[in-house]
Parts: sequence; C-alpha cells; structure tokens
Amino acid sequence: MTTETTILSLDNPVYFAYVLAASIMLLKLMLQPWITVFRMMKVRGGFRSPEDAKKSPLNPNPVPGQLDPSEYVERSRRMNLNDLESIPAFLVAGLLFVLMDPPLLLAQVLIWAYVIARAAHFIAYATAQLHDVRATLWTVSSISVLAMVVYTLARLLAG
Amino acid sequence: MTTETTILSLDNPVYFAYVLAASIMLLKLMLQPWITVFRMMKVRGGFRSPEDAKKSPLNPNPVPGQLDPSEYVERSRRMNLNDLESIPAFLVAGLLFVLMDPPLLLAQVLIWAYVIARAAHFIAYATAQLHDVRATLWTVSSISVLAMVVYTLARLLAG
Amino acid sequence: MTTETTILSLDNPVYFAYVLAASIMLLKLMLQPWITVFRMMKVRGGFRSPEDAKKSPLNPNPVPGQLDPSEYVERSRRMNLNDLESIPAFLVAGLLFVLMDPPLLLAQVLIWAYVIARAAHFIAYATAQLHDVRATLWTVSSISVLAMVVYTLARLLAG
Repeated sequence: MTTETTILSLDNPVYFAYVLAASIMLLKLMLQPWITVFRMMKVRGGFRSPEDAKKSPLNPNPVPGQLDPSEYVERSRRMNLNDLESIPAFLVAGLLFVLMDPPLLLAQVLIWAYVIARAAHFIAYATAQLHDVRATLWTVSSISVLAMVVYTLARLLAG
Repeated sequence: MTTETTILSLDNPVYFAYVLAASIMLLKLMLQPWITVFRMMKVRGGFRSPEDAKKSPLNPNPVPGQLDPSEYVERSRRMNLNDLESIPAFLVAGLLFVLMDPPLLLAQVLIWAYVIARAAHFIAYATAQLHDVRATLWTVSSISVLAMVVYTLARLLAG
Repeated sequence: MTTETTILSLDNPVYFAYVLAASIMLLKLMLQPWITVFRMMKVRGGFRSPEDAKKSPLNPNPVPGQLDPSEYVERSRRMNLNDLESIPAFLVAGLLFVLMDPPLLLAQVLIWAYVIARAAHFIAYATAQLHDVRATLWTVSSISVLAMVVYTLARLLAG
C-alpha cells in the first residue's frame, strides 16, 4: 500500500492536483480583500471603523458618509464571507481526502469541479447575475467538498 | 520514535479519531449554509443581494421586503459565522496536535469533547436556549482546541 | 532529496518555525472571541441573539437596549472577522509551503513577518490607530501569505 511519504509527494498526481488547486483557491481567498480595498478607494467610502473616516494620507479629503454602507463595497465583503464559508473547508477536506489515496480520476473530477464552479461563482457574484445562476454554481462547489468528506468517512468506516 | 509516516496512518488510533471527528465537523461546516438556504426558501426572504429579489425560477413570485433581515434566517447565518470562528481552527490545531504524537487518551478526550460540545451547541443555538447554556457549551469547545494548541506549544518548547 | 517524513519533523527547522508560528496564530484566533465575550460582559450589551437579553445567571439584571450594537463590542467582532480572513489561509498556505521544503531563511522571513505584522495589526486595531497604520500592517501580512502561495505554485509549475 502507498505510504504517506509517497502520498504527500509531487510525484503523486493526486497530491499534485490538490496542491495546484489549493494554491489557486488560496490566491482567490487572499485577493478578495484586496478587491474590497480597491472598491473602498474607488468610492472613497464603505468604511467600517470610525477611525477610517479621519484625515490621513490614504484619505486626504474626508467627506461625511464615508462610514455608510456602500452596496459596491458590501458586495465584495459578501463574496469574501462566501469564500470563508467554502475555501478553508475545501482546503482541509481536500488534504484529508488526498491522504486517503483516492482514485486519480475521482480526485481530479472533484477537485477541478470545485475550482471551476468557484471561478464561475466569482464571476456570477461580481456581475450580479440572476440568483439562480449563482446558487447552481455554489451547489456544485458545495457538493464537491461534501463528496470528498463522504468518501473519507466511507473509507474510514469501511476499515 | 514514531515517524510521521505511521502517524498519518489509519492504523494510528489518534489519527483515526482525528479524521473521523474532522470529517464530522466538515460536514457540519458545509451543511449549515444549506440550512440557511432552506430557511430563505421557507420564509421566501432574508436575502442579502439585490438581484436575489428578482423574478426567477427559484423566486417565481417576488414580494416587497425579501431583502429585509429575517431573524429566522439570520440565526442560521450567525450559527455559520460561529462555525467559521471555531471549526477551521479545530481542524488545523487538531492536525498539528496529532503530528505531535500525543497520548491516545488525551487525544480522545479533547477531540470528542470538542465534537460533543459543538453538537450540543448547535442544538442549543438552533432552539434558542438560554444564553448561558450556549455559552457553557461554546466554552467547552473553545477550551478543547486551546488545550490542543497549548500541548503542541509545550512539546515544541520542551524540545 | 528530503522526504516528507523528515519534513514534518521538529528536527526540520522550517517545520519547527511553522508549528511555533501556527500555534501562536491559533491562540490569537481562539482568544479573540474571548475578548468579544469580555467586552459584552463589561458593557452588559452588544448581544446578537434575542434570547441573550433574557434574565439568566450571566445576565441577572436585563436592561433595554442590550441587543443594540455597541462599537466597543463590534470592534472586537471586526477584529475576529479580520482574523478569519487571514489566519486559516496562513495556516494552510504555510503547511503547503513547508511541504515544498523551502530554504530556511526565506521560510523564516515570511513566517515571522506574518506573525509580527499580525501582532502589530492587533494592537493598531484594538487601539483604533489611524487607518493607514492598520492598512500597512495588514498589507505586510497579506503579502507574506501570498509569497508563500506564489513560491508553492512556482515550485509546482517548475516541475
């Protein structure tokens, strides 16, 4: 049987696919707050902390209402929260799944279905597509992660 | 000394307990958003994005106020946020703790205290039990994870 | 070449640094909710769930307005959300980075830049320093994690 030493090696195509997908999703997770920052700079508002409305090099001309919610900024925050509900779970569920040494085809289908669904979900959310489009893509990504967990549990309980 | 190869093996009862508990908590983390979806469908409201109030197959008869907060839906969102504050930390703290090759009894007590406390916390939160019940269960789960981290740090610093 | 067995060993100074930093950040992640609890007890308010305003041993003298937002409490909740956007990503990105067997100096610079920047960010946020101070520290921590992910991706794609 394959040992963990060879499982966590880039020579293992399942681990390679996981690390590639995990890196892409980590970039997504880390870059969404930068989109929020960009949007706050663009509308010069949507801030959350009282001190953010003070005069500073990044906010040279404070105006009233900078602490009011801005839908343009809030959308990026909701996208970030949506990432937080999904990506860390994918990262850990994926690692535990990979450590179960699953069949390569199954692993590739689940891992790339997740990445593609999340990429499309990002576009649908950012461009405010009809709710049903976003919901369908979210469902695909959620089921991909659930399938990894169910596979792991089934292997565990099968002994 | 046990090597990591044998630590990350299902033959290691500490790793087995961790993967079983982690899978259960990953299911919980992934299923809470489905409860939020179910509640939004049931009350036909509590939506967050403006486009969600548009007419669509999933929302065939839009009514005013679908974007207003609904306590029934918000409760599920608060439960999800509470999961986000706790479960990813448990998953990573647990893995690092397991890699320290802790005594089996200690590992089982901490891992299952966490899972049982979170399951009871879920019920207490969903059924709006008195705050003190929820707070006590949350405290047990928090201390379980903190104990894993303190054990890891103590072993690190003991050299 | 170094195998994973020796990578995930405390004898590997890169892994040692990672586990030490990860444990510190896990403590931070787990203790911020306790700060929120402390602040709610101190101002006897800032609660979120309707049942939290009921009379109980922890809330012996309920007063009106206990469910209204309190900036003192909300600040700690924003700090917690900021942790959630950053720390789980650092924990997983760091582990995948360590599994790539990076040079010790690079690993130490990125890992400790993250920890120091987050510690300073915590102080700046808690004491409501000018936004630009907090933003600069957040930027350092974000770039540290991004650099780990980019290193991992570069190593993957270089084959």
